[in-house]
Amino acid sequence: MTVSDKSLAQNLAVLLDKIRAERPLVHQITNYVSVNDCANVVLAIGGAPVMADDKDEVEDMAAIASALVLNIGTLNSRTVEAMFLAGRQANRLGKPVILDPVGVGATRLRTETARALLREIKFAVVRGNISEISALAGNAGTTRGVDASGAEGNAARVAARLAEMTGSVVAVTGAVDAIAHAGQLLRVSNGHPMLTRITGTGCMATALTGAFCAVTDDYSLAAAGGLVCLGLAGERAAAGHQGIGSFRAGLLDEVSRLCGRDIAEHGRVHVE
Amino acid sequence: MTVSDKSLAQNLAVLLDKIRAERPLVHQITNYVSVNDCANVVLAIGGAPVMADDKDEVEDMAAIASALVLNIGTLNSRTVEAMFLAGRQANRLGKPVILDPVGVGATRLRTETARALLREIKFAVVRGNISEISALAGNAGTTRGVDASGAEGNAARVAARLAEMTGSVVAVTGAVDAIAHAGQLLRVSNGHPMLTRITGTGCMATALTGAFCAVTDDYSLAAAGGLVCLGLAGERAAAGHQGIGSFRAGLLDEVSRLCGRDIAEHGRVHVE
Amino acid sequence: MTVSDKSLAQNLAVLLDKIRAERPLVHQITNYVSVNDCANVVLAIGGAPVMADDKDEVEDMAAIASALVLNIGTLNSRTVEAMFLAGRQANRLGKPVILDPVGVGATRLRTETARALLREIKFAVVRGNISEISALAGNAGTTRGVDASGAEGNAARVAARLAEMTGSVVAVTGAVDAIAHAGQLLRVSNGHPMLTRITGTGCMATALTGAFCAVTDDYSLAAAGGLVCLGLAGERAAAGHQGIGSFRAGLLDEVSRLCGRDIAEHGRVHVE
Repeated sequence: MTVSDKSLAQNLAVLLDKIRAERPLVHQITNYVSVNDCANVVLAIGGAPVMADDKDEVEDMAAIASALVLNIGTLNSRTVEAMFLAGRQANRLGKPVILDPVGVGATRLRTETARALLREIKFAVVRGNISEISALAGNAGTTRGVDASGAEGNAARVAARLAEMTGSVVAVTGAVDAIAHAGQLLRVSNGHPMLTRITGTGCMATALTGAFCAVTDDYSLAAAGGLVCLGLAGERAAAGHQGIGSFRAGLLDEVSRLCGRDIAEHGRVHVE
Repeated sequence: MTVSDKSLAQNLAVLLDKIRAERPLVHQITNYVSVNDCANVVLAIGGAPVMADDKDEVEDMAAIASALVLNIGTLNSRTVEAMFLAGRQANRLGKPVILDPVGVGATRLRTETARALLREIKFAVVRGNISEISALAGNAGTTRGVDASGAEGNAARVAARLAEMTGSVVAVTGAVDAIAHAGQLLRVSNGHPMLTRITGTGCMATALTGAFCAVTDDYSLAAAGGLVCLGLAGERAAAGHQGIGSFRAGLLDEVSRLCGRDIAEHGRVHVE
Repeated sequence: MTVSDKSLAQNLAVLLDKIRAERPLVHQITNYVSVNDCANVVLAIGGAPVMADDKDEVEDMAAIASALVLNIGTLNSRTVEAMFLAGRQANRLGKPVILDPVGVGATRLRTETARALLREIKFAVVRGNISEISALAGNAGTTRGVDASGAEGNAARVAARLAEMTGSVVAVTGAVDAIAHAGQLLRVSNGHPMLTRITGTGCMATALTGAFCAVTDDYSLAAAGGLVCLGLAGERAAAGHQGIGSFRAGLLDEVSRLCGRDIAEHGRVHVE
């Protein structure tokens, strides 16, 4: 680890402390599969979650929240309308908006919806797996449900391409995560294969990124914060689990137990 | 503890045994964040949950259930319509209806919906935190998502005010809970700060109150039953947890393990 | 156990290994109570879950999935429309469709919807408790929410009747499960009473059946696979639990830890 990398992890530690001190409200419009985990993981990191998704209140909620997370995991016409309303409102008020384009590439509805969101809303961060980000970046990637496929080596290239197309920070998660923005690349190498064996860990990484975006305007660093925290918690939860049920509970345990020193000492993030 | 307080806890113990013997059907129209916990906590206390929320069946379901819980945590036009239909049906048939006005005060939609529900439906119990109940009682309280704010000392006053306005039992939960009705005040002091660190514990308290309302028409006592059971289970789960994931599982464990003697000996409820 | 029964359990072991090798995509349109458990249990057995439920994408998703599970636990007009579209698409493409008629008999909407689904879609397997299957088979059974009632001895008769009416494999779950198809009857006697004390275990059994249907066209055997796996995991989780919260986590743990040898040695399935 270089001095500069050590300093990155220390910066993340400062942000974690800031989340716990400020307790930012993180508004999420998300899917009905992992919604409980996404609320609890925001509580675990020190934020306050709110999951309102009706078109008649999302603008009010976005106005009092510090960050907005849009997740299309189980999109439908009702919640997609709410996503546009909330996203535009957050943009108007200068609040960060984070996109999780779950399953993009698997159906035309997902691809078209995610592309429309990217056209009309300015995102601070877009986080997905290599298949999802490839589908948005115009590559010939194929998505099989919500799973990653394709070579990990492509992650940096695909992330950089979508970052250039959108102006957003783009995070491609996998065995090693790539975070691209404006010609810069960060790599996060915390994590554990068990994170692929329960549902919703991608959504949780995005939710955590939302909490970090609420306390800094360095959105590359915020994305690194979300991915380091979930990855490090995953490493620790994997040590003691008895299967996927106890791993799921342990993952939330470990996120809630993370402290600044953990991140500073064990966060594996570097500039490439 | 006075003799009268001891007797209150013993009455709750009798109600718990009654729930376990009768296994009442508790119909809940609720939010998609904590819905699984709300179903499981009703099972844990000994009731039978059913979560139907379509307008074309909620009247049929309310007719066969013994209590109805309405929770506006993630309200939308579809489920709000179902809440009115189910609530009116339960009123017609003399079944208790319980309201959890989640996040009231945070958006106009929530405040207007909760007020409309209170106008058109007779509630046995309304349970919320101090911000939510203040918003309904016409105070200048502010709600920040689903969090409590404001001085705990106000709880009794605000609860009494909404109770007078509505004729319902009103429970304001916090470090010490206040339950007001018709000039009477009960205080419940079971509980643990960990209960504020996972999502849905307020909803679970309301769901448990629904199970108690199904077996008694003393709705103040029923509200005390719900709050004592969740609070006592929270105290016990807090003793052994490793973070919020294991606390969440432990909370359900402890509710399912409560017996009448636990409540009679460790329930902290008194008349003020 | 006869030689033929031993051979049945060994066949199930082969199917479990096949799921883990092929990782089939299992598309579920389901209720918002147990949806997270239904996704995680499919991951636990080795499949890949996807829970899309919008009418504008379910046909695309059904086309890339290997099996489709329809669960009416919290049906509404939006998702019922999606169920018909996805079900017809799966039928056109020759993919197995599995029905969980949750709460049928409790409301007219449920009964009419389940009957319409049975008329218009060809199901590989229908799985429910005795009350639900009785309601569909035209018996005078009564459903009380999602609970089983009625004598277990009727299970085989009722299952056979609905199987004859529909041409589907029909599984009636209870203390001992009955699986009927074309004059043949299988019995599965794995399981534990704790499985009735948490919400969603019926849904999880159906989800697991979907994963097995994805790797064989012997749908009676597939249903036995789902029921043996959930039942055996339930037996093991019941051994170490501290209440319903840890039982729920333990159940997923045990499904994820099952291996072919477990099924071959401890699966209790026989031809009657």
